[in-house]
Amino acid sequence: MPVDFTGLQCPIPISDYPNVLMAHGGGGRLTQQLIERMFLPAFENPALESLNDGAILSLDGVRVAFSTDSFVISPLFFPGGDIGSLAVHGTVNDLAMCGARPTSLSAGFILEEGLPMEDLWRIVQSMQQAVAATGATLVTGDTKVVDRGKGDGIFINTTGIGVIPDSVNVSPKRAQPGDVIIVNGAIAVHGIAIMSVREGLEFETQLKSDSASLHDLVARVLDVGGEQVHVLRDPTRGGVASATNEIASKAGIGILLHETQIPIWEEVRGACEILGFDPLYVANEGKCLAIVAREAADEVLTAMREHPLGEEAAIIGEVVADHPGRVFLRSRIGGRRVVDMLSGEQLPRIC
Amino acid sequence: MPVDFTGLQCPIPISDYPNVLMAHGGGGRLTQQLIERMFLPAFENPALESLNDGAILSLDGVRVAFSTDSFVISPLFFPGGDIGSLAVHGTVNDLAMCGARPTSLSAGFILEEGLPMEDLWRIVQSMQQAVAATGATLVTGDTKVVDRGKGDGIFINTTGIGVIPDSVNVSPKRAQPGDVIIVNGAIAVHGIAIMSVREGLEFETQLKSDSASLHDLVARVLDVGGEQVHVLRDPTRGGVASATNEIASKAGIGILLHETQIPIWEEVRGACEILGFDPLYVANEGKCLAIVAREAADEVLTAMREHPLGEEAAIIGEVVADHPGRVFLRSRIGGRRVVDMLSGEQLPRIC
Repeated sequence: MPVDFTGLQCPIPISDYPNVLMAHGGGGRLTQQLIERMFLPAFENPALESLNDGAILSLDGVRVAFSTDSFVISPLFFPGGDIGSLAVHGTVNDLAMCGARPTSLSAGFILEEGLPMEDLWRIVQSMQQAVAATGATLVTGDTKVVDRGKGDGIFINTTGIGVIPDSVNVSPKRAQPGDVIIVNGAIAVHGIAIMSVREGLEFETQLKSDSASLHDLVARVLDVGGEQVHVLRDPTRGGVASATNEIASKAGIGILLHETQIPIWEEVRGACEILGFDPLYVANEGKCLAIVAREAADEVLTAMREHPLGEEAAIIGEVVADHPGRVFLRSRIGGRRVVDMLSGEQLPRIC
Repeated sequence: MPVDFTGLQCPIPISDYPNVLMAHGGGGRLTQQLIERMFLPAFENPALESLNDGAILSLDGVRVAFSTDSFVISPLFFPGGDIGSLAVHGTVNDLAMCGARPTSLSAGFILEEGLPMEDLWRIVQSMQQAVAATGATLVTGDTKVVDRGKGDGIFINTTGIGVIPDSVNVSPKRAQPGDVIIVNGAIAVHGIAIMSVREGLEFETQLKSDSASLHDLVARVLDVGGEQVHVLRDPTRGGVASATNEIASKAGIGILLHETQIPIWEEVRGACEILGFDPLYVANEGKCLAIVAREAADEVLTAMREHPLGEEAAIIGEVVADHPGRVFLRSRIGGRRVVDMLSGEQLPRIC
């Protein structure tokens, strides 16, 4: 039965945004507006409103995380990975950020007519290898083909299910003053690796995306930190700035980041300067933020550093009672500046 | 770590199919080849190999169906529905065909820059109404935007989870000689409704897609048929012909369809003649095939006919021991002809 639109009005003022813009997919302010004004009111329910990286469900008493992500990255192949491995890492990480052990994945392919068969096959092999490394299985799939010029080679949706152990209790709302913020390594690598291919930048050594599945690192963190691990979040689109802003806003706490403590590789910093990017806003895929009670910080940091994907882990900030809902950065020279949500779109199609 | 391709070769001969064709997404022979030669060997596991409409998983002892589908239909709005309602019906039906009660859905949107915001909103409203009608909830989502000219307005992936009651035991492999094949109503309506918009055909009354969620009808069928309901399948892409071929091949049985018993509306038959389509190959979305033990056939048929979505239900064929793996049609004039898998692509982007 068709929807009766009498008396209904589009919740995003057509006069402001008559059409969808690239920034609506950028992970910043316009994405947030789209979600908060259009999607949440339409589908309102507690799981959706938690705005976790995935939903947390109870299926006949079993606590399950369920997360979906579509991947539209350009180019399809990049140093350190391709759309196939990225599509696995992205969804596995969203499950891991819910504290779940990934068990099952689905793959939905939208292929553009004319995609070289060999490219598809390489992408599938790469997905397979990434899936095998997680211990999960890819159990169901779907393939659609669209006419030439109506897609862009291949888009992949991966959706995943994971079981959450009873001992785990992570949620953005659990961030509280006194907690510390730990990252498992240098930020902005994935975004800059992609942008440098697109812009033809050359480095002394090739910069590779750090895209990886973090399920195992997260399992170690939860093993040592238990319930003292309050929040897990992977700073993908919109980077560390957007991820911390979302947490600050949801938990009603303030966040203070320490610029000198945030690990950034020199070549990434240089590329950011050339490209005019702030590394705090650059997308990651292989990095996670753990917000943990101060008394568990050392143990969690050590556990991360002992893991191959966490050797450069560092404490980069803290949760404060001041300025609730906002993120500040204590800069290299000692000043403090606001770190806001991304308002435009600096890195289109990075995941 | 990148895949080492030394010694590996694309399993689909590049000399035959150097590029992806529209027919690779048509649900017929080339789709099957892509699945069997490329996807199954890569991701091999029992859930995937069952080739159900969804995977059946055990999560800490709870039997769960998990299914994914991407929707790329053109046009986005059509008589009787739009891509939003279709995306819900499609995945809900895939879960229902596993015998599951749908509980949770995810939505992944790929928007093309420039999509009118009002169109997006109408689609979201329509999804919401379709979700509400199922009793499931949409619990998680994702939105990406691609550049103008790299998409086609909107593509939607929906993935769903449903719980399978203990009493249910459906699988293509359970089809056995003596079973009868029941359909819940007239076939080929969805495909012809879409094609008539694209081709500008006019009917005396507007032909509307029959797209609908079948979870409730299926629940009734399972209530009365129990374990005597052997197979459930919705004949979407590739139509009744492809669905029955898949079952025949998987169960190693023969299928005989009776042309005179297959319900087809006159205007649909007429449109098929004008467009040169065989209605057996036209996509449905609101129809399901139930293969049931003969002794349960009357009860299942009655249950379907008492349901608003099954008033025209009919027994259209039977499972036979002859010609295992193949489907025959006893025609109106009494002859028999082979009903083969679709080998090309007759109806692109119908779902």
